[in-house]
Amino acid sequence: MTPLKNDTLIRALLRLPTPYTPVWLMRQAGRYLPEYNATRTRAGSFLALARNPELATEVTLQPLARFSLDAAIVFSDILTLPDAMGLGLTFSEGEGPRLERPLREERDIRKLAVPDPQEQLGYVLETIRQVRSALAGSVPLIGFCGSPYTLACYMVEGGGGADFRAVKAMLYSRPDLLHHILQVNCRAATALLNAQIEAGAQAVMIFDTWGGTLGTAEYREFSLSYMQQIVEGLRREHEGKRIPVILFTKGGGGWLEALAGSGCDAVGVDWTVDLAAARQRIGHRVSLQGNLDPAVLLAGRPAIRAGVAAVLAAYGNGAGHVFNLGHGVTQFTPPDHVAALVEAVHELSPPYH
Amino acid sequence: MTPLKNDTLIRALLRLPTPYTPVWLMRQAGRYLPEYNATRTRAGSFLALARNPELATEVTLQPLARFSLDAAIVFSDILTLPDAMGLGLTFSEGEGPRLERPLREERDIRKLAVPDPQEQLGYVLETIRQVRSALAGSVPLIGFCGSPYTLACYMVEGGGGADFRAVKAMLYSRPDLLHHILQVNCRAATALLNAQIEAGAQAVMIFDTWGGTLGTAEYREFSLSYMQQIVEGLRREHEGKRIPVILFTKGGGGWLEALAGSGCDAVGVDWTVDLAAARQRIGHRVSLQGNLDPAVLLAGRPAIRAGVAAVLAAYGNGAGHVFNLGHGVTQFTPPDHVAALVEAVHELSPPYH
Repeated sequence: MTPLKNDTLIRALLRLPTPYTPVWLMRQAGRYLPEYNATRTRAGSFLALARNPELATEVTLQPLARFSLDAAIVFSDILTLPDAMGLGLTFSEGEGPRLERPLREERDIRKLAVPDPQEQLGYVLETIRQVRSALAGSVPLIGFCGSPYTLACYMVEGGGGADFRAVKAMLYSRPDLLHHILQVNCRAATALLNAQIEAGAQAVMIFDTWGGTLGTAEYREFSLSYMQQIVEGLRREHEGKRIPVILFTKGGGGWLEALAGSGCDAVGVDWTVDLAAARQRIGHRVSLQGNLDPAVLLAGRPAIRAGVAAVLAAYGNGAGHVFNLGHGVTQFTPPDHVAALVEAVHELSPPYH
Repeated sequence: MTPLKNDTLIRALLRLPTPYTPVWLMRQAGRYLPEYNATRTRAGSFLALARNPELATEVTLQPLARFSLDAAIVFSDILTLPDAMGLGLTFSEGEGPRLERPLREERDIRKLAVPDPQEQLGYVLETIRQVRSALAGSVPLIGFCGSPYTLACYMVEGGGGADFRAVKAMLYSRPDLLHHILQVNCRAATALLNAQIEAGAQAVMIFDTWGGTLGTAEYREFSLSYMQQIVEGLRREHEGKRIPVILFTKGGGGWLEALAGSGCDAVGVDWTVDLAAARQRIGHRVSLQGNLDPAVLLAGRPAIRAGVAAVLAAYGNGAGHVFNLGHGVTQFTPPDHVAALVEAVHELSPPYH
């Protein structure tokens, strides 16, 4: 494979010096881009788009054509994994994802099996191969999956419910059943990420969107421990290069030390956490990724520039920071505001290096 | 007024010794109780219920008839305040509250005025007087209001949106306008709480449901500073008794020290925070209220008892703990599970005192 021309992301994730702070954005390929919406319309649906490697490659590359981002992230969805387990993923307009056969009965839970990534998620791997080829070493490609607990939330609830009462009721009354689901998810996520690395992902990230809804003890038992098992099971080197692993628990600001002790290379932090405090707590052990409030992108360029400056100043001098939002780009974001953000990071960060 | 027979709540809030840990529950009068639903049907709507002192008194007292709770909390809603400002509150089945005239235009924001509690929220004050009379000193009555920022979220969004993009866009692009709303809300909340104290509320609580969606700097500037101003403006003694003030920022676990420094007597903590760690951080300055995950009440009695035991053990020995959930009782809670919780707190807590 072609060597990387811009390896600032990989270096920053490994806490090695870089000339500036690399930047990419969660959900950088998405509905805020008119060209994304056009491709999605062409595909017919979100799922058809995710399952079509040519079109998924196209949308993966779209934000890189517009903005000088320091990484690509493969266009996919964390729920393709439960879909491959036979739970029946659908997306309805405005309502978000649904799983048609949620796990409520013990017999369904006991039947759950780890899908073979090559056979059942081959389209994700093929997208990764095509994106790598198209990138030709310009920037690294990030692969990802959902955390076992976050996947379980959707698998038990059938969707992204607000109160998670089905999964929480299971957690408190039948923890054995939830642990069974989590074990399957853990093996499935490990296999999927290793297959992504094999296919060409140069860094991987585990998205724990809902771990932050747990109590501290429950977070450790039902979310973090499984992410740690994934990290331990990952292939950490490929093509002679270290593959950095990023963990991100939204709302996990109270557990940064535990996250940093999981064996990962970097911890993503949402915007509720002060990055200076986060660095003091764990920045000597791992890199930090984040953490501008995505809502800043709804304001004008001066606010964006001020927000970028504040995040950079909070992290301060030296290596180990990857600029990102604290959560995904919203669909209401004007694309030129993203341009302003990327420019500001590249312009304002060199003095810190 | 009759002296209090059971003053464990007040004593615990003031970090004075009690024979056991007092317990009350956020939203203890609510939809999980069939008698509440019957009264609400009789009233015609949620708002008609809240505005009718006789019926509001009835539902305030309903949970106390069932469970040996150590406090009553006046039945009302934080949005009665924006309603009194003329924003037009409505509740539609299953969709939550709406404000019909959200604040989007500068001229509307500049016209915002502090309502007179006696004239425009007299029904809340009358409910407090009637509840106090009915309680006849059995347990204390808690009054409450929403935090200025939480109220502003609803006032700008028009409802409890998931992403708060209108209020966040205002925060980042027109902070002056948001500060104007917050100043009005702050004066209105102070006047309302003082009127509630005057009418007989023996403790007051400020609910900051959405402050936890802010970044650290924004939380201090747009939420905490206004709650602190309210605390400073409150009448802290009435009928010769100290009136304790509780602040609760949901998702505010990262800012406990700042909350404890606001001048309040107690800080409410949600279930994501470990109570032992919270006590170590701020328990020498204020009392702590919380923090069982409301979802534990969806599981069976053994899980509830274990959950209660874990919270009591986390707080540990000595004064300064008020048992509560980390958020409100959900409508799906079986009432006998609440009974099990209250019994467990009263049975398991004496050894800690």
